[in-house]
Amino acid sequence: MAKTAGIVIIGNEILSGKVQDANAAYLLHELRLLGVDVKKVSVIPDEVDIIALEVATFSRQFDVVFTSGGVGPTHDDVTIEGIAKAFGHRVIRHPELERLLRSRYGSELNEARLKLTEVPEGAVLIREDSLWLPAVAMENVYIFPGIPDLLRQKFESIKERFRDRPYFLRKVYVKEGEGNIAAFLHDLLREFPELMLGSYPDIHNPSYRVMLTLESKDEAYLHTALERLLAMLPGNSVHQTL
Amino acid sequence: MAKTAGIVIIGNEILSGKVQDANAAYLLHELRLLGVDVKKVSVIPDEVDIIALEVATFSRQFDVVFTSGGVGPTHDDVTIEGIAKAFGHRVIRHPELERLLRSRYGSELNEARLKLTEVPEGAVLIREDSLWLPAVAMENVYIFPGIPDLLRQKFESIKERFRDRPYFLRKVYVKEGEGNIAAFLHDLLREFPELMLGSYPDIHNPSYRVMLTLESKDEAYLHTALERLLAMLPGNSVHQTL
Repeated sequence: MAKTAGIVIIGNEILSGKVQDANAAYLLHELRLLGVDVKKVSVIPDEVDIIALEVATFSRQFDVVFTSGGVGPTHDDVTIEGIAKAFGHRVIRHPELERLLRSRYGSELNEARLKLTEVPEGAVLIREDSLWLPAVAMENVYIFPGIPDLLRQKFESIKERFRDRPYFLRKVYVKEGEGNIAAFLHDLLREFPELMLGSYPDIHNPSYRVMLTLESKDEAYLHTALERLLAMLPGNSVHQTL
Repeated sequence: MAKTAGIVIIGNEILSGKVQDANAAYLLHELRLLGVDVKKVSVIPDEVDIIALEVATFSRQFDVVFTSGGVGPTHDDVTIEGIAKAFGHRVIRHPELERLLRSRYGSELNEARLKLTEVPEGAVLIREDSLWLPAVAMENVYIFPGIPDLLRQKFESIKERFRDRPYFLRKVYVKEGEGNIAAFLHDLLREFPELMLGSYPDIHNPSYRVMLTLESKDEAYLHTALERLLAMLPGNSVHQTL
């Protein structure tokens, strides 16, 4: 069970605009469905010291941390070294990973591929039947590959361990602009201070101007707040409630 | 002219997976074309203290900072307050913004809309003919709206002020897996330590297995490094060079 999470996306290719990241959006969507509150996403370069500092900070601040990228066999794959440094540990070759790679590559298991057996000392392997290579976790940091298909495969296999109480979400589409409804939202939050209330203008949609989102882990509280909001808003201003 | 940059994306809707961010990818792509080296992207919630801390840190670390989101008229729009706090300044209503909004909204300029005139004290307006509302900058922090169309419009209008020497980029698509070429890449970097060299596997493309990217602001250096790499790689292993 995880209440809060942070995501660290590692890769010069993202920061330099050559490759568009898809992993943050995927993890944000999945973690929300699991009831996990993601507090921060960082995108940082393939540099050991920067990775070490970011992972150490995230690991202290959040219940769980997910990293994406920088775990392949080439020179720019320095995530393992960075995470090891974050915890003041050495990098070791994990015997179980070496056995798995040896059975796959045989005599083609060169120095570069042996890099795939490296983990921070003290890391644990998470074996799942669906995974050829186990997932790797160092304390509360889950180390994922950057290739989206592989990241999804690993996350899918282990995601149930993060499940928390679900969020309940309702949406109200409003035909008035934000400037005309801001005062109502303000009043609603005074009555329902625990409500997670979002207001998102859409300048393209012809049927409504603002999407309001109401969220809570307490379904009854959410229901009451929604009723109150609908009573407050001027007649005719609601396009749709979902 | 800006050598380094950081991007701060502000919005609970992104972190909660309700809305997928498009602004980071846009800015990363545009800034690279301008020759600017983006060092970090953060996605953080609509919370004054978190915004203040992140913006203060980014402002010290990078030449320029771009924020996206949290500048509308509703309760969850607290970016201006956060940025003001980052610099230890008050929030004020800017007379020029008030004049512009008054000419647009007339008697409909209510309290909520007046929030759109707020800036950190000491902020400057950047007027461009193409912009109805000027862009706002506080020291080296450029404050953009979260709505992608509006962000793009503002960025397009002011982007030339950030232009630096361009990056030159070449790509080599290789039919071998990373495990078989890692040693060559390592050797190449020993000879060309200033080369920005990336290696990105593609598990879906039938014609190649890895895209190598070579980058430099020195075109001659890049050219020599590319020639050297092509001489190193085994015959037949190069699918395409772009």
